[in-house]
Amino acid sequence: MSVLVHSPATLSNLGCGFDVLGLALAAPYDAIRVRRSAAPGVRIRHLDPYNLPTDPARNVAGVALLALLAALPEQEGVGFEVEITKGIMPGSGVGSSAASAVGAVVGANAVLDNRFSKMQLVDFAMAGEAVASGARHADNIAPAMFGGFTVVRALEPAIDIVALAAPPLWVAVVHPQIEVKTSEARKVLPATVPLGLAVRQWANVAGLVAGFLTADYELIGRSLDDYIVEPARAALIPGLAEARRRARVAGALGGGISGSGPSIFMLNRDEATARTVGAALGSVFAELGIAFNIYVGPVATEGARVVSEC
Amino acid sequence: MSVLVHSPATLSNLGCGFDVLGLALAAPYDAIRVRRSAAPGVRIRHLDPYNLPTDPARNVAGVALLALLAALPEQEGVGFEVEITKGIMPGSGVGSSAASAVGAVVGANAVLDNRFSKMQLVDFAMAGEAVASGARHADNIAPAMFGGFTVVRALEPAIDIVALAAPPLWVAVVHPQIEVKTSEARKVLPATVPLGLAVRQWANVAGLVAGFLTADYELIGRSLDDYIVEPARAALIPGLAEARRRARVAGALGGGISGSGPSIFMLNRDEATARTVGAALGSVFAELGIAFNIYVGPVATEGARVVSEC
Repeated sequence: MSVLVHSPATLSNLGCGFDVLGLALAAPYDAIRVRRSAAPGVRIRHLDPYNLPTDPARNVAGVALLALLAALPEQEGVGFEVEITKGIMPGSGVGSSAASAVGAVVGANAVLDNRFSKMQLVDFAMAGEAVASGARHADNIAPAMFGGFTVVRALEPAIDIVALAAPPLWVAVVHPQIEVKTSEARKVLPATVPLGLAVRQWANVAGLVAGFLTADYELIGRSLDDYIVEPARAALIPGLAEARRRARVAGALGGGISGSGPSIFMLNRDEATARTVGAALGSVFAELGIAFNIYVGPVATEGARVVSEC
Repeated sequence: MSVLVHSPATLSNLGCGFDVLGLALAAPYDAIRVRRSAAPGVRIRHLDPYNLPTDPARNVAGVALLALLAALPEQEGVGFEVEITKGIMPGSGVGSSAASAVGAVVGANAVLDNRFSKMQLVDFAMAGEAVASGARHADNIAPAMFGGFTVVRALEPAIDIVALAAPPLWVAVVHPQIEVKTSEARKVLPATVPLGLAVRQWANVAGLVAGFLTADYELIGRSLDDYIVEPARAALIPGLAEARRRARVAGALGGGISGSGPSIFMLNRDEATARTVGAALGSVFAELGIAFNIYVGPVATEGARVVSEC
């Protein structure tokens, strides 16, 4: 038996919510086929052009599946054959590695009669994510697993994820083809922040969560700004300030750096606005002579899910 | 024409939400009678034992009313006679000065045919609050004005208050009779905070707002903890750690220092739990030989309001 899973791209941080907030996108997504096999271990094929490692111990989906296998009784003799078609470009900052890790464990769970809870799957997927980013975090894993809008309230002593419904929103993302390594993006962060700035930041976090839960689009727009992380990372992304300016003129509610970049996201009320905003974002990088991709789509109400079985 | 206004006590900070979050209590409250007079200016009488200044320029209600009068055309010849019966003890940390400032301007607005918006009244009340605390802030003003659960998202460039409904909750407050001056409580705050701790704090802020808006009591309980301000202020309030411990044993969801103290609040699912928790809080200060008051009541769904006219 095999299943095909679609696992969505995600926005982590979401402006003011560094390391905590996340949002799932309906597109792009990774397509991951998982087949149960009697041969133990994990075998991975990539059907995409990204030349990612297929050694399971060095592949995010592989490590996530090895973590899942380690939670099974050894005598069960279970293994997985996995085919991954990445729709999400690695290194783009929209949760590429989280999508593969989550999609793989959701598929594996389906061929094992869903014996694990979503929270257990989050734990396995985080092991995979750590291979890509060097740290256990869940701010892309959570929205990829649950869909909608997520809060990673704590990782210790136990993972505490709050999965919430998001109001209808359309997202425009520009991915300029420059490399921003997550490890580099972490290095520029300040070790400490002035208390007054931290207060302004959590005031925006409070506003943003309230805006999502009451579908108050104006409040969402006012609350997205990040006073701490984006100023430190802005220098890594040429065109950021101008992209933000043109997006607002084009009608975006607001936005910022997606994850650790280089992608920039903007939230919008409707599809027409999101398409205009996407074009405005693209125009900045066209003028800078930097190749780019644009993604426009609605927020995903569901996380990674089985779309077919055979 | 005169009106009688009841203006509620409030919890600011609310655990993790320093300077941002607030909650209105059904009791205690200040009772404020405002009468329009043809004589310009403000005349204040206090019908309580607290010996507060009655010079309008030095009284929080007086300064708030002078700010309101300054927004009227001078030739209108309006003044106010005000009688204040404080049900909220000054210096208790449950928004005593905010209650008087808000109640006074709500009353004045009523006798002036409600010509000002609530946001304008907030601005006048903040002028009054500044007399008591030395700084313009709105984290007690907002819940006293709007009731329920409030987010002060920004003070600059414009005041941005988000007024939200709170789920049914009962609050237990102990006010130990020790003096903690707001200015002293501000002095012990750290100038900067480690980024990792700030992230944990805004993760809790996100959890708390989500918990309130989805009526998830367990989430509220998990999210209240303050990693930054309470640790700095704990030494100012003897018995705090033990009060917290006994309250949790008695069934409280969680709590912390109310405002800048010395009061300690605990949130609870129901009245019976809140009464048990109130007794547990009191037992700590009884053993320490510190006089105390206990308040137990539900969250107020409304802010300051006219209860009678004559």
